[in-house]
Amino acid sequence: MQEQPSNQITFNYIGRVNSPYKEKFAIPRQPGLVSAAKGSISLIDNANNEELLRGIEQFSHLWVLFIFHGTAQQGWKPLVRPPRLGGNKKLGVLATRSTFRPNPVGMSVVKLENIEQQNKQLIINISGLDLLDQTPVIDIKPYIPYSDSISGAQAGFAQQQPFQALSITFSKQAQEETKKYQQVYADLPLFIEQVLAQDPRPAYKKQQEDTKIYGMILYDLNILWQAQSSIEISVLSISKISG
Amino acid sequence: MQEQPSNQITFNYIGRVNSPYKEKFAIPRQPGLVSAAKGSISLIDNANNEELLRGIEQFSHLWVLFIFHGTAQQGWKPLVRPPRLGGNKKLGVLATRSTFRPNPVGMSVVKLENIEQQNKQLIINISGLDLLDQTPVIDIKPYIPYSDSISGAQAGFAQQQPFQALSITFSKQAQEETKKYQQVYADLPLFIEQVLAQDPRPAYKKQQEDTKIYGMILYDLNILWQAQSSIEISVLSISKISG
Repeated sequence: MQEQPSNQITFNYIGRVNSPYKEKFAIPRQPGLVSAAKGSISLIDNANNEELLRGIEQFSHLWVLFIFHGTAQQGWKPLVRPPRLGGNKKLGVLATRSTFRPNPVGMSVVKLENIEQQNKQLIINISGLDLLDQTPVIDIKPYIPYSDSISGAQAGFAQQQPFQALSITFSKQAQEETKKYQQVYADLPLFIEQVLAQDPRPAYKKQQEDTKIYGMILYDLNILWQAQSSIEISVLSISKISG
Repeated sequence: MQEQPSNQITFNYIGRVNSPYKEKFAIPRQPGLVSAAKGSISLIDNANNEELLRGIEQFSHLWVLFIFHGTAQQGWKPLVRPPRLGGNKKLGVLATRSTFRPNPVGMSVVKLENIEQQNKQLIINISGLDLLDQTPVIDIKPYIPYSDSISGAQAGFAQQQPFQALSITFSKQAQEETKKYQQVYADLPLFIEQVLAQDPRPAYKKQQEDTKIYGMILYDLNILWQAQSSIEISVLSISKISG
């Protein structure tokens, strides 16, 4: 970190995220919607020092400030189309949580599970994350209810949680495969259900019938699924990513 | 903005804060505690473009991500002494909202008053801010209640708002001076009361009698005050800063 002339500042990453979300598709649009998502932050360089975390276990939730590294190379846009509005209305980027911001910095509140040390590597285990694997972290702050939780805040189109009355079913094949992979990922069925309950399809296809078979990657698994009707998504198969 | 090799990223400032707080002393420890604090953010360079704000009026509150420019030059510390704990217990910097962070980035929720345009300058009027004048801004995001307001979050020592049962009185002289400056700053008495109700004194002097006369600067005014007893602060005088 140093403050520079000419309205710029340079930050050093303090950590990297380890996440089951290996690609942008199917990541929930806000943190907390998929509580079964479990991941971690590994602290790096000077920040890999247990003193920095002293007392952090008193907090149930943390803010993570991070870089939208998956889209940062695409630059930013003054206007974006929020999926909430069906993708057909433009809003100013600062009126949204879009990744295409003047500075590609995001903030997410996650649940703190515990702190772990493996050899000399400090690991902050978290859940409910909405972060892409390998996301660079620039800051971690405790969630402080009396200042962060604003009662009566108004948020127009984003007031309510996007509710999807989707039911999720598993094909016979997917059920058997799930059992097998649960030996490694115990919460796998719940995790898949919560991710699909968001309906990860593009906004214009949401809550519609749709014959397309979608694939999504969680951990090292490729999960194929299909919308059986406007209210049901079916998981077809689960397999290890080859290669 | 560009992503760089070697775990660094450079951000361009998108705005600057105009605040009545001209020095660090007496700034409330969290936003929202002093609702009568009114300020603004002026957008700069490429960000001074009304498209970026389209639709932002739907939100009652905004997150401001900013640089702790008043303390950034002092570098960071792994351990800090939160004023909440009386200043005599050390906690890890990432377990606090201290300014002395590995990357000197802060986040504050503020109330959005309105958007104004003066000539070609876009101004976001805000209240309840806890930001030093001229603070550089790197991002502005809408406050989204369903994802930002975590019901049941636990925060150990920082769970409750620091409550100060301080009553604030104005000396006869200060009353007369207040009336005069209210022509420029209508909310001045309420603003002074709310700032002093936090008891801006160092943690070890809080809620104690104390003969020292303190000065604090709000807007272009120097305000002198004194703790009359453990539960009362008296405003002695208000005058324009000379020079």
